[in-house]
Amino acid sequence: MPAINESLAVQFDATRGRSLEICAPLTTEDHVIQPFEDASPPKWHLAHTSWFFETFLLKPYLPDYRPLNEAFEYLFNSYYNGVGEQFPRARRGTLSRPSVEEVHDYRAHVDVGMRELLQRELDDQVLFPITLGLHHEQQHQELMLTDLKYNLGHNPLTPAYLDRDSKPENEVAAPLGYRHVSGGIYDVGHEPGTTKDFVFDNESPRHQVLVGDFEIANRVVTNGEYLAFVEDGGYDDPSLWMSDAWSLVSTAEGFKAPLYWRKSDHGWVEYTLTGSRPLQLDSPVTHVSGYEADAYARWFGARLPTEQEWEIAAASHSNTAGNFYESGLLHPASQGEDSEHFFGDVWEWTSSSYNPYPGFNPFTGQLGEYNGKFMANQLVLRGGSCVTASSHIRHTYRNFFYPKDRWQFTGIRLAKN
Amino acid sequence: MPAINESLAVQFDATRGRSLEICAPLTTEDHVIQPFEDASPPKWHLAHTSWFFETFLLKPYLPDYRPLNEAFEYLFNSYYNGVGEQFPRARRGTLSRPSVEEVHDYRAHVDVGMRELLQRELDDQVLFPITLGLHHEQQHQELMLTDLKYNLGHNPLTPAYLDRDSKPENEVAAPLGYRHVSGGIYDVGHEPGTTKDFVFDNESPRHQVLVGDFEIANRVVTNGEYLAFVEDGGYDDPSLWMSDAWSLVSTAEGFKAPLYWRKSDHGWVEYTLTGSRPLQLDSPVTHVSGYEADAYARWFGARLPTEQEWEIAAASHSNTAGNFYESGLLHPASQGEDSEHFFGDVWEWTSSSYNPYPGFNPFTGQLGEYNGKFMANQLVLRGGSCVTASSHIRHTYRNFFYPKDRWQFTGIRLAKN
Amino acid sequence: MPAINESLAVQFDATRGRSLEICAPLTTEDHVIQPFEDASPPKWHLAHTSWFFETFLLKPYLPDYRPLNEAFEYLFNSYYNGVGEQFPRARRGTLSRPSVEEVHDYRAHVDVGMRELLQRELDDQVLFPITLGLHHEQQHQELMLTDLKYNLGHNPLTPAYLDRDSKPENEVAAPLGYRHVSGGIYDVGHEPGTTKDFVFDNESPRHQVLVGDFEIANRVVTNGEYLAFVEDGGYDDPSLWMSDAWSLVSTAEGFKAPLYWRKSDHGWVEYTLTGSRPLQLDSPVTHVSGYEADAYARWFGARLPTEQEWEIAAASHSNTAGNFYESGLLHPASQGEDSEHFFGDVWEWTSSSYNPYPGFNPFTGQLGEYNGKFMANQLVLRGGSCVTASSHIRHTYRNFFYPKDRWQFTGIRLAKN
Amino acid sequence: MPAINESLAVQFDATRGRSLEICAPLTTEDHVIQPFEDASPPKWHLAHTSWFFETFLLKPYLPDYRPLNEAFEYLFNSYYNGVGEQFPRARRGTLSRPSVEEVHDYRAHVDVGMRELLQRELDDQVLFPITLGLHHEQQHQELMLTDLKYNLGHNPLTPAYLDRDSKPENEVAAPLGYRHVSGGIYDVGHEPGTTKDFVFDNESPRHQVLVGDFEIANRVVTNGEYLAFVEDGGYDDPSLWMSDAWSLVSTAEGFKAPLYWRKSDHGWVEYTLTGSRPLQLDSPVTHVSGYEADAYARWFGARLPTEQEWEIAAASHSNTAGNFYESGLLHPASQGEDSEHFFGDVWEWTSSSYNPYPGFNPFTGQLGEYNGKFMANQLVLRGGSCVTASSHIRHTYRNFFYPKDRWQFTGIRLAKN
Repeated sequence: MPAINESLAVQFDATRGRSLEICAPLTTEDHVIQPFEDASPPKWHLAHTSWFFETFLLKPYLPDYRPLNEAFEYLFNSYYNGVGEQFPRARRGTLSRPSVEEVHDYRAHVDVGMRELLQRELDDQVLFPITLGLHHEQQHQELMLTDLKYNLGHNPLTPAYLDRDSKPENEVAAPLGYRHVSGGIYDVGHEPGTTKDFVFDNESPRHQVLVGDFEIANRVVTNGEYLAFVEDGGYDDPSLWMSDAWSLVSTAEGFKAPLYWRKSDHGWVEYTLTGSRPLQLDSPVTHVSGYEADAYARWFGARLPTEQEWEIAAASHSNTAGNFYESGLLHPASQGEDSEHFFGDVWEWTSSSYNPYPGFNPFTGQLGEYNGKFMANQLVLRGGSCVTASSHIRHTYRNFFYPKDRWQFTGIRLAKN
Repeated sequence: MPAINESLAVQFDATRGRSLEICAPLTTEDHVIQPFEDASPPKWHLAHTSWFFETFLLKPYLPDYRPLNEAFEYLFNSYYNGVGEQFPRARRGTLSRPSVEEVHDYRAHVDVGMRELLQRELDDQVLFPITLGLHHEQQHQELMLTDLKYNLGHNPLTPAYLDRDSKPENEVAAPLGYRHVSGGIYDVGHEPGTTKDFVFDNESPRHQVLVGDFEIANRVVTNGEYLAFVEDGGYDDPSLWMSDAWSLVSTAEGFKAPLYWRKSDHGWVEYTLTGSRPLQLDSPVTHVSGYEADAYARWFGARLPTEQEWEIAAASHSNTAGNFYESGLLHPASQGEDSEHFFGDVWEWTSSSYNPYPGFNPFTGQLGEYNGKFMANQLVLRGGSCVTASSHIRHTYRNFFYPKDRWQFTGIRLAKN
Repeated sequence: MPAINESLAVQFDATRGRSLEICAPLTTEDHVIQPFEDASPPKWHLAHTSWFFETFLLKPYLPDYRPLNEAFEYLFNSYYNGVGEQFPRARRGTLSRPSVEEVHDYRAHVDVGMRELLQRELDDQVLFPITLGLHHEQQHQELMLTDLKYNLGHNPLTPAYLDRDSKPENEVAAPLGYRHVSGGIYDVGHEPGTTKDFVFDNESPRHQVLVGDFEIANRVVTNGEYLAFVEDGGYDDPSLWMSDAWSLVSTAEGFKAPLYWRKSDHGWVEYTLTGSRPLQLDSPVTHVSGYEADAYARWFGARLPTEQEWEIAAASHSNTAGNFYESGLLHPASQGEDSEHFFGDVWEWTSSSYNPYPGFNPFTGQLGEYNGKFMANQLVLRGGSCVTASSHIRHTYRNFFYPKDRWQFTGIRLAKN
Repeated sequence: MPAINESLAVQFDATRGRSLEICAPLTTEDHVIQPFEDASPPKWHLAHTSWFFETFLLKPYLPDYRPLNEAFEYLFNSYYNGVGEQFPRARRGTLSRPSVEEVHDYRAHVDVGMRELLQRELDDQVLFPITLGLHHEQQHQELMLTDLKYNLGHNPLTPAYLDRDSKPENEVAAPLGYRHVSGGIYDVGHEPGTTKDFVFDNESPRHQVLVGDFEIANRVVTNGEYLAFVEDGGYDDPSLWMSDAWSLVSTAEGFKAPLYWRKSDHGWVEYTLTGSRPLQLDSPVTHVSGYEADAYARWFGARLPTEQEWEIAAASHSNTAGNFYESGLLHPASQGEDSEHFFGDVWEWTSSSYNPYPGFNPFTGQLGEYNGKFMANQLVLRGGSCVTASSHIRHTYRNFFYPKDRWQFTGIRLAKN
């Protein structure tokens, strides 16, 4: 096996293994349901990530590869029109078959094929989609955790994903402060070909931006700080909200607090992946929409950073250490005085629309649908969360969600002029 | 144990056992999903039928009964406002917990309680809901089978519920003929208190009706006969359809054939609980809505019988033998010359709206919600189907569905003046 | 002009004139809007009633007839699939053209044609649709009044249709009493060909029904009586409501009182065609749905009559005098001791589904769509209302609406066994 | 009257007069309807623009001002939560009252008040909202024209707004070419206080941006060029579309061509405010959504400009001459070789999300809702259209619509790197 393949094979096994690790605490039943359109069944994630390798590697490049089931091409295609039609996304939770066991068989079948492929001399055209497939699977691992949080958390029985105590280590948040960054011309984004490391097409090309002087907060907003907004009637004051947001906030079923907050007889309670617990005031607020982040910032007299400001500020940090999936907390932890905490804990909403960088080139071929076609109506988020793989993040990384979305581990960093 | 209890206990064990028997061929995953609002998860049926005994028997009548889980009162209440609020029906398929195993535990817990209760001297006030609970469970057994038919049948993989050949024994349908019934005053319905046998409140009181001379078909409409309607453009001719039906038929996604018919390259195929197979032309057509039954009859130059006509004609049969659940076919069989086949195979749409009989008295108390509150916008169906328990049916039995419904084993018997 | 034509011509002029008379108090703007799908613009009614004569009389029977505008065939077709496609019903209020004046021209153009046609020797095939067209226009005159009541009444300015005092003459309702009717075999419906008078196809054929002894109220339910139901929490008690109704009642926007009742600081106020006024307790309650009628009856310990019972009871009255359009009140009046008031004031909900009579034959040809295709999901109402033409009603007359409908002048007569 | 007031009074009369001028060709009926939610009735525009002066000028600043009708505060409030609740936007077309005449009276009543106010010594706090109100009314004049184009154009009768020939003067479009602009730091936006001229809050503050070298087209895309995209199957190729767009394009009712194009037996026809006519190939394509503009550019191998690029390129033009409302064409005209045509004809979609400029300050008080709360999910458009007032436009002017919107006069200018 060529050396480069060897390293890939190790990564492949590790990444594929983690998907199973994440699903290990689940019951079979938990794998099946789709409590709302965006929260796909864990079973689907397990299958779709295998479909990716089958579709973009095994079918085109492994001679004599035989699919386990021809129907899976249609059933587990997410959104690649170039590959063919897709089973309707909103109905993924209405399929009991293939069973979880059959999906495990499908994974094993694909894994066998992939290990066979990795025995061969492969050129970049083949190596690239393998690497992409691993990063793709890391993204779905995060989605599995956020989707199953909704899956369990919306159930009136509110079962925990993991039955253990999840006391965060750092109990006290640093006092809120701001770092001053001088305006000027900065380089942002990643220059293709400059490192061996993988980056997504949407992070390139590297380009210059001009920013003014700005201040950026030393940590994200805490539950306690956000609670003050709630208790001040923030959700009832239309002057704080974008017009598109107000229609989501002002109805009987509208947003009244972050997604997993519940008011109990004994005060606010927050559902976490390790169960419900009293709201920790020093922990970062999470599961807020971009609209709520924007309204909070307006109420506070600050604003959200642009994605350029965020990247410029974060680039000064030599590493991307933080509270990621590997910490095992599976929840944001209080951000103390030791760092500016740009990485981990919560994805940080920026005020920037998700647009192509000047000179953007999508991945070639069918993989061009990976990122480019979503560059409308979404906002950029930065920094990774407590359920992101630590190896997945970098300061140029651009995540994106609609401003109404709340089921991700999303939070708020403030900025000022 | 009192003698009457002993007989009830035998029935109880048999009935409770059958629910598990029906679910035995299912995977865990199959128990969870709800492919459309009306088709509840099998898991839910298993729990709700237990909830019925817990709510109406164990909680009020078994001293020291302790519920397994207090939340189940809310989670598994179907529609009894008198008992309390209900988890939203349309979202039953979004709950992975309690697990199938926990639902089995719930069943066992309730069964223990019920057997304990049956040890005691019980008056009619207690005996009645026990009997009702058994008939209730039989109804849900039929629903489990029709719901899981949809569950599996709408899956692009179209897995069979039972993997075996289901050739019906009787291959040739009798020639279509009509029996003449003379008009006059007839008694229909059941007189309360006249037998020991259980009947539902909606079958009473027995009362006189006046009908004119009529002709009623000797068997239900076959697939072959219905196919002629399809091929004659029946679904494209608005003059055959009720106005409310036309809006369901004339759209791109509208009805174009019975629910489980699919046109393949080799002709029409029908999905059955034992898998897909070429359309059997002599088998009864099934999974047609009341609207389709009405349009077919109009196209044919006949009409549907009223429920009174049906009952008068059926009452002349000394027994209710037919193709029921116990035959093991799980599909309607060709109706030959041996009988008029009023019972079994398919529920037969009548033209009668589901209304109370003159002097109707609902069951007392919370159980009054069982039937009475559905007497709006539905039609009466008669005769039972191939997935009805044979002991459940009688000639006064009134089933009811909306005229648009198709996921039950519903069929068409013609009548004429 | 043949004698029979002469009489028809007089009726024609009178009927056509009344449509204009009804619209005379309206502004041009009032003619245009459609405040909800069922309440078509007055302009549309004026055009559609002319379309009827053009389509079924002038085009087939008047040589050299030239339509004013070919597009009107499509624009003003209500629901006759046999004639062709229809402009979508829900969008009738989005058309500013043709203008009201052009619609008046269209009416005049059709009237000229019709008067020309009436000069000719006509056989029954032609005479019949003329008569039908006049009864059709009377029906639309009633709809114009109920539609424009909604049109004006839902406007926050609540303008009156007629600006005058509408004190009803009879201020005191008779005490509620019941008439006993002995059970037996009765004839109901109309025997075709037995009179020269026009009847709709749905009233035939005359046929025998068997009814039990029953009691029927001497008048309809008053506002005061209905208010007791409201104040007793009738709208909050699920045990009083059909299941299909409860979903309309139990939401924030659900029914809480009759359609035009409003609670003001000074008590209940009712909007009428002559403006808003304090609720008159002795006046008949009106603008209640069939569901509300049913719930009220259940709360009261009575029931709604069947349409057969209603007709049997009403048939004993030698005339159909009552408070109709011609009284000029345009609102139901208190029903005193002088009569049983089966006719006029409010359409009375019956418990009978709108089904064909045994042996029903729809009108022939395209006119077969007039009534027959609506025989699903609706209830029969009897007796006419304060905005029905007095010459339009008879004791066999069957009106029909969905049980949820409230914008007609609908009311409640109680019955008992 | 103070001199500054005198000039304002002249503008006031001219602007208020133009609203009536625009509505002069309309029938009363045309004033009333709302054919889809975004296209408000002309009557509503006439009233709302008056409401603006009443609410922000007369009520606070004219002593003893008496509103004509208290209910108008609610009825004609568009979206100012700071003022109070609003009549639901989607239901504006369901109100026949106040009548058009009453709305004219309302306008006259407000005009009298405003002329009285203008007699007084006024400080900037009062002068500003007067000026704003005039620019506000100019914006609604454009909306009146686009709304009534939909109003008439969606009517199957497709009546013309103006019955006259609208041959554009310049028949031949210039060959497509590009101007090169060198990258660098540019100033964009308007510096508050630097001129006496009015600008909106969203155009400020002036700030520096860094752009790369770019090429920008010398004119907008023509019908003929866009037709090539249509005929090449552009609407059927998912690889050209944003994911959010594809769901609007790929359905049976989805976009298949620009909004007012219709395929007739004799080729493509375009509806204009002067009626339908064969598609003019050299005229600018218009009534395309931002999604279509983006897909066209991708198909063509170019891209849309950013709003900064557009402004930098447009700023080199010394004047803003172009085909505006005053030309009387009311349709975009072929763009010949004489100019780059940055102004007039069509609003040009940019790729820029509508975001606040760095340091953005909304107008103070209730008027802060004017622009700021719409800075989510919309794109910036530049340059004005054939129905914009010529005095309303400037090179810093930022218009904004959702990328799906098509009922404005929107078009496409290409750019390249």
